[in-house]
Amino acid sequence: MESIESAVRLFKDQLEKLRVYNHAMGVMNYDMETVMPKGAAPLVGETLGALSEACYRLQTDEAFVAAMETILQNPDAVDPITRREAERMNEDREYLASIPLEEYVEYQVAQTAASSVWHEAKVNNDFASFLPHLEKLVEMTGRFARYYKPDQPVYDTLLGLYEKGLTTETLDAFFSQVRGALVPLLERVMTCGREPRTDFLYRFYPKAQQEKLTEYLMRIMCMDPDHTVCGEVEHPFTTEFTKADVRITTHYHEDAVHYSMYSVIHESGHATYELNIADEIARSPLGSGVSMSVHESQSRFFENIIGRSEPFITFLFPKLRELFPEQLKDVTAHEFYLAVNKAEPSLIRTEADELTYALHVMVRYELEKQLFNGTLAVKDLPAAWNALYKEYLGIDVPNDTQGVLQDSHWSSGLFGYFPSYAVGSAYGAQLIKLMERDLDVWGNVSEGKLQPLIDWLTERIYRYGCRLDPKDLMEQAFEGPFDPKYFTDYLEKKYTELYQL
Amino acid sequence: MESIESAVRLFKDQLEKLRVYNHAMGVMNYDMETVMPKGAAPLVGETLGALSEACYRLQTDEAFVAAMETILQNPDAVDPITRREAERMNEDREYLASIPLEEYVEYQVAQTAASSVWHEAKVNNDFASFLPHLEKLVEMTGRFARYYKPDQPVYDTLLGLYEKGLTTETLDAFFSQVRGALVPLLERVMTCGREPRTDFLYRFYPKAQQEKLTEYLMRIMCMDPDHTVCGEVEHPFTTEFTKADVRITTHYHEDAVHYSMYSVIHESGHATYELNIADEIARSPLGSGVSMSVHESQSRFFENIIGRSEPFITFLFPKLRELFPEQLKDVTAHEFYLAVNKAEPSLIRTEADELTYALHVMVRYELEKQLFNGTLAVKDLPAAWNALYKEYLGIDVPNDTQGVLQDSHWSSGLFGYFPSYAVGSAYGAQLIKLMERDLDVWGNVSEGKLQPLIDWLTERIYRYGCRLDPKDLMEQAFEGPFDPKYFTDYLEKKYTELYQL
Repeated sequence: MESIESAVRLFKDQLEKLRVYNHAMGVMNYDMETVMPKGAAPLVGETLGALSEACYRLQTDEAFVAAMETILQNPDAVDPITRREAERMNEDREYLASIPLEEYVEYQVAQTAASSVWHEAKVNNDFASFLPHLEKLVEMTGRFARYYKPDQPVYDTLLGLYEKGLTTETLDAFFSQVRGALVPLLERVMTCGREPRTDFLYRFYPKAQQEKLTEYLMRIMCMDPDHTVCGEVEHPFTTEFTKADVRITTHYHEDAVHYSMYSVIHESGHATYELNIADEIARSPLGSGVSMSVHESQSRFFENIIGRSEPFITFLFPKLRELFPEQLKDVTAHEFYLAVNKAEPSLIRTEADELTYALHVMVRYELEKQLFNGTLAVKDLPAAWNALYKEYLGIDVPNDTQGVLQDSHWSSGLFGYFPSYAVGSAYGAQLIKLMERDLDVWGNVSEGKLQPLIDWLTERIYRYGCRLDPKDLMEQAFEGPFDPKYFTDYLEKKYTELYQL
Repeated sequence: MESIESAVRLFKDQLEKLRVYNHAMGVMNYDMETVMPKGAAPLVGETLGALSEACYRLQTDEAFVAAMETILQNPDAVDPITRREAERMNEDREYLASIPLEEYVEYQVAQTAASSVWHEAKVNNDFASFLPHLEKLVEMTGRFARYYKPDQPVYDTLLGLYEKGLTTETLDAFFSQVRGALVPLLERVMTCGREPRTDFLYRFYPKAQQEKLTEYLMRIMCMDPDHTVCGEVEHPFTTEFTKADVRITTHYHEDAVHYSMYSVIHESGHATYELNIADEIARSPLGSGVSMSVHESQSRFFENIIGRSEPFITFLFPKLRELFPEQLKDVTAHEFYLAVNKAEPSLIRTEADELTYALHVMVRYELEKQLFNGTLAVKDLPAAWNALYKEYLGIDVPNDTQGVLQDSHWSSGLFGYFPSYAVGSAYGAQLIKLMERDLDVWGNVSEGKLQPLIDWLTERIYRYGCRLDPKDLMEQAFEGPFDPKYFTDYLEKKYTELYQL
C-alpha cells in the first residue's frame, strides 16, 4: 500500500490537472455564449468533448482512485480539507464511473449541439428542430441516472445531482404547501381592484445607459472589478473560474429597464457567493457554491428580498433618475417600487414577479417528473407545457418561443435543476428573519450599504464552499430545520401591504 | 518497426489532441485580451502554462516522435499532406526538444505575466515596472535560440522562427534599399509645401457608429459572419481556431475615425487568409498562414494598397457620410483620400502612413539586433528607442507610452517578428502588379467588390496554408524572385502623384 503522503501528493496533482481542464472548458463555454461566431459551434463541441473525456479519464484513472481510497481509508491521517475533497471527488467518481466513457463523450457533444440548436430554435419559434436534440438529451440523462442509481426513481437521482438529499417526496410536499398559500393570495391580489402603473418601465431605455446602470449595480453589490466582468448573452448566467475570475452576464432589452436591472442583481448574488469563499479552498474542488438551491437562495435573496424592497428602491431611484431623466420624469420612487412588484400571471419565468414565480417553477417540475417517469413523451412537451400554464397560471401560451423554448436549461442538459429556484427563494425568506435579528438590514440597504449583509452571509454560508453538505450548511445557517412557512409568510406580508389587501 | 498505418494513426491522434489544447489556449488568450477581469491574469497564466506543458509533452512524446520518424523515413508510403505535416511537426519538435521542459513552462508563465504587466505599464507610462519582465523574456528567448541553433547568431534564429530562411544579411540589404529610396522621398514630401487637411479625421466619432462601420467593412472584406467576430482590445490582433472561427479585434478612438477603420481592414486581411485555406487541411497543423511576412503581406495589402487607394475611398465615402453626416459634411471623398495618406514622421507605428511605416519597423529591427547580439541592455532600451526615432524619423519621443511601450509584441515574447511588417508590405506591392495584369482590380474595388481579389489571392496563396515554405510559396505567386524594387517604385509613384512632386 502506498504511503499517505504519496497518495495525497498524487491526489492533489490530479486535482490541479482537473482544475486546468475545467478552467479551459469554463472559458470556452463563456466564450461560446457571449462572443463566438455561431458557425464555430461544432468545432467547439468537439474540443469540449475531448477535454471532458480527459477529465473523465483523470477522475476514473486507477492511480487516482487508489490514492483517493487510501485517503478515505485513513481519514485521521489527513487534514480535514483533503478528507472532504476525497469524499466529494469520490461521489463524482462514482457517478462518472457508472457511465461508459464513449457514452459520456457522446453526451458532451450532444449537449453542445443541443445548446447551439436551441438558440436558433428559440429565435425562430421552431420546436421541431430542437426536438431530436432534446429527445437525445432526455434519453441519455435518464440512462445515466439509471446507470448511477439503478434502484432509485430516475427523477430523484437527477434532483440529487443538484441538491444532495432532495427528493420528489420532499418537493411534492413543499410545492403543495406553497401552492396552497400562493394561489389564494394571487386570487386576492388579482381581484382587489388595485393595479400599479407600469407604463414607464417599458419606455425606451438605451443600452449604453443600461450598461452604466450595470456598472453601478455591480459596485453596489460590492463586486470587485479586478475579479468580475459582465458579458452579454441571450439567457443570463454566472460562471466562475475560481474566485479570481467570476463572470456574470445580462441581456439588455431597450424597451424594459427592469429586465437587465434585476438580471444583474440576481447574477451578482450568485457571484457574491463565489467571490467570498474562503481563500484556503479557493483552488480546491471545494471552492465553489455547494448546491443549486443554496446558490439560487443567494441570487434570489438579492434580486427580490433586497432588490425589490422599498428601502432599496428608495436608495436606487435617484441614480435611476440621473441615468434616465426623460424616461422617469413623471415617476416617484414609490411608483417604481410598486411597478417592479406588480403581481400577475405571465408567460416568462425570468420576468415573473416574486409571487407567481414559484408557479412557473412548478410547471417545469411537473413536466420533468413526467418526462423521466415515462408518462410524457418529449414531442408532447409543448402541449403539456401550454396545458399546465393554463391550469396553474390561467393563461394561454401563444408560441413556443414564449413557452417551452424560453429557458436554456434543458438545452444544457439541466434536468432536476428548476426546483432549486423555488427552494432557494424559500431559503432566502428564512435567512432574512435571522439577519434582521442580527443587524440593521434595512437601515444599511436604505443607504446602499450591502457589505454588512454580505459579511453576514459569508460568515454563515459563503466561506464554507462545499465543506458542508447543503442540508447541514443550511440547518447551521438557519439555527434549526428548514421551514417553507417563512417563505409563504414573507410573501403574504409583502403582498398584503403592497396591494393593501 | 511499427507499420506505416499504425504510425500514421498514432500521429494523427496526437495531432488532434494538440488541436484541442491549442484551441483551448487560443480561446483563453482571446478571452484574456478582450474581456477577462485583470485580477485573473495569474490564474490564467498557470492554466496556460499547464496546457503548454501538455502540448510540449505530446510533441516530444517518444511514441509520437517514433511515429513521425517512421513517416519521414517512408515518405512515399504516405499521402503528401501527412508527409508535409510530419516535416513541419518535426521542425517544431526539434525546436521544442532543445528546450528543457521546466524552462519551457517557466517561459509560458513569464510571458503571461509580462503581457499583463505591459498593459498596465503602457497606461501608466511606467517602463520600470515592465523592465524585469522584459529582461526575463529577452534572456529566456536568447537562451532558447542558443539551445536550438548553438552555431547560428541568435537573432537569425529568431527571424527564422517567423519566416523560415530570413536572415540579418537579407534584411540589412532590404532595409538599406528601402531606406535609400524612402528617406529622400519623404524629404521631398515634407518640403513640397503641400499639406492635406486632416482636421475632420479628429472630430468626435461615437463608438456606436464606428461599430456599424466595422460591421460594414467586415462585409466588404467578404468575411462570413457565421465564422468571424470582432472584439475590442488595447492593441488589435487576429486569432484563429481553424477556419471555422476567426476572430479579429479593434480599438475605438472616438477622436480619430481612421484608426479603427484601418485596423479592421488590416485584421480582416489576416482573417481572409485564414478563412480561405483549403478545407482538406483546415484541421491540420498545415491549416494556418505559413509565416508572419506572408500574413502581413495580406493585412497590409488590404489596409494600404487597396484600403488607402482612391477607388476604394471613392466607393466607401458615401457610407462614411451616411454614418457620420455631421462630422463629414464639409469634406469630399478626395480630401478624405488625401488625409488618410498624409505622410509625416510620427510616434506611433500602427498609426503611421505607408511611407514612413518601414522606418518605424527599422527602429525595432535595429534594437532587436542589438538586444540579441548583446550590444544593448534591456534597461537602456527607452533611451536607444528615443535616439533612433530622432535619427530615422527626426522626432522627439515625449514618453514611453508613445515610445518603447507602444507595441504589445515584446510583452508577448515576439522578437524577430517586426521585420515581417516591412517585408510583408513589399510582398504586397509585388503582388498588385500581377493582379492588375490578371483582372480589373480597380474597376472591382471602385464598386466595393473585393471577392475577385480574394479569389485571386486564394488561388495563389491562401489555399496552400503551410503546404509550401514561404519562400517557395511567394516565388510561385510572384512567378519569379522577390524584388523590393516593386515596393519602392509603388511608393514613389503613389506619393509623387499624391503630393504632385
